[in-house]
Amino acid sequence: MGSSGAGELNSPAAAEDAQLREHTLASEQVYLGHFLDVRRDQVRLPDGATATREYIVHPGAVMIVPLLDDGRLVVERQWRYPLARAMVEFPAGKIDAGEAPLQCGIRELAEETGYRAAEWARAGILHNAIAYSNEGIEVWFARGLTLGDRHLDAGEFLEVGSATLDELNDQVRRGELTDAKTLVGLLWLQHWRAGHWPLEWRSVP
Amino acid sequence: MGSSGAGELNSPAAAEDAQLREHTLASEQVYLGHFLDVRRDQVRLPDGATATREYIVHPGAVMIVPLLDDGRLVVERQWRYPLARAMVEFPAGKIDAGEAPLQCGIRELAEETGYRAAEWARAGILHNAIAYSNEGIEVWFARGLTLGDRHLDAGEFLEVGSATLDELNDQVRRGELTDAKTLVGLLWLQHWRAGHWPLEWRSVP
Repeated sequence: MGSSGAGELNSPAAAEDAQLREHTLASEQVYLGHFLDVRRDQVRLPDGATATREYIVHPGAVMIVPLLDDGRLVVERQWRYPLARAMVEFPAGKIDAGEAPLQCGIRELAEETGYRAAEWARAGILHNAIAYSNEGIEVWFARGLTLGDRHLDAGEFLEVGSATLDELNDQVRRGELTDAKTLVGLLWLQHWRAGHWPLEWRSVP
Repeated sequence: MGSSGAGELNSPAAAEDAQLREHTLASEQVYLGHFLDVRRDQVRLPDGATATREYIVHPGAVMIVPLLDDGRLVVERQWRYPLARAMVEFPAGKIDAGEAPLQCGIRELAEETGYRAAEWARAGILHNAIAYSNEGIEVWFARGLTLGDRHLDAGEFLEVGSATLDELNDQVRRGELTDAKTLVGLLWLQHWRAGHWPLEWRSVP
């Protein structure tokens, strides 16, 4: 297969993807813990061969980019055990069973930071570990923030602060801010502020 | 704990993080497959309580942002089984045991796309699933590209194409390009082209 343009790569003709598609032959749950649900599937490859695919089944999550009235952003600092360090990130959390993404965003923002937002806008979704997880993280913007009480989950410890976009960009450049979802939030923020990627705001009572 | 500035959130005084840090009490491998290595640890929380942490141990990966001489970017389209669809992304792959990230980048770019690059520059690292994986993806830029043969791994199927930054940004805005590492590559590309985030290029023979 040769080189082709990006248009071709996204053409309707490519939607079938017979030349790429993997078909499920069998699926097995190989681990179910408190948090992780691990599957191992047997698949048929485009050339008819078989292969194994292992992946996490995840309920999805919502990240909030919280815009303070003075232009600063609300950020958190939280211990991330797999990386053995605290990380700066935008508020985020897993979607509960049956919960709409916006409701999840409202709940997580309040629980983790104490902020409520008058207006919300959905920017998009990101997929953060496409090789081994079906997790999607919805990216929502929130503005018209007012501070109330926060209610962390039991066993949840995090610091809340604020920063300007320039400060966060500097942290990225220096290698101090490396959380992928937060970096994607900065990408959206940059393009929204530049007027390139519009947001549709909705009021939340 | 109150609100604090981002400077505070990254201050040397915060480096100890006693108020956030989780200490390992016990660690167990609960699943080891062809690809996934899953651990379940018992940890002591800052308040002395205990909790369970489940996570993937990952060797790390390298993503390449390949710059063609005409300003276009090399992108791939690949079936991502956990999401049951093909996705547009920058070339990337796992680091082999003992392999330096730059060597991994050179190898993956050649294997997946057939391109060799005269110059390479490391932009940074991203952590894509900080709640449940220790994976870090190094972000490298490559330029001075020449096309040779590619050598896909057995069972690897992908299409290679190219796109402008504007085309890729449009795909993000429309919700068609959602791979987090690729979005972070676009963030770096944007800031590098704007002169904000310089890259140190090195020649590779």
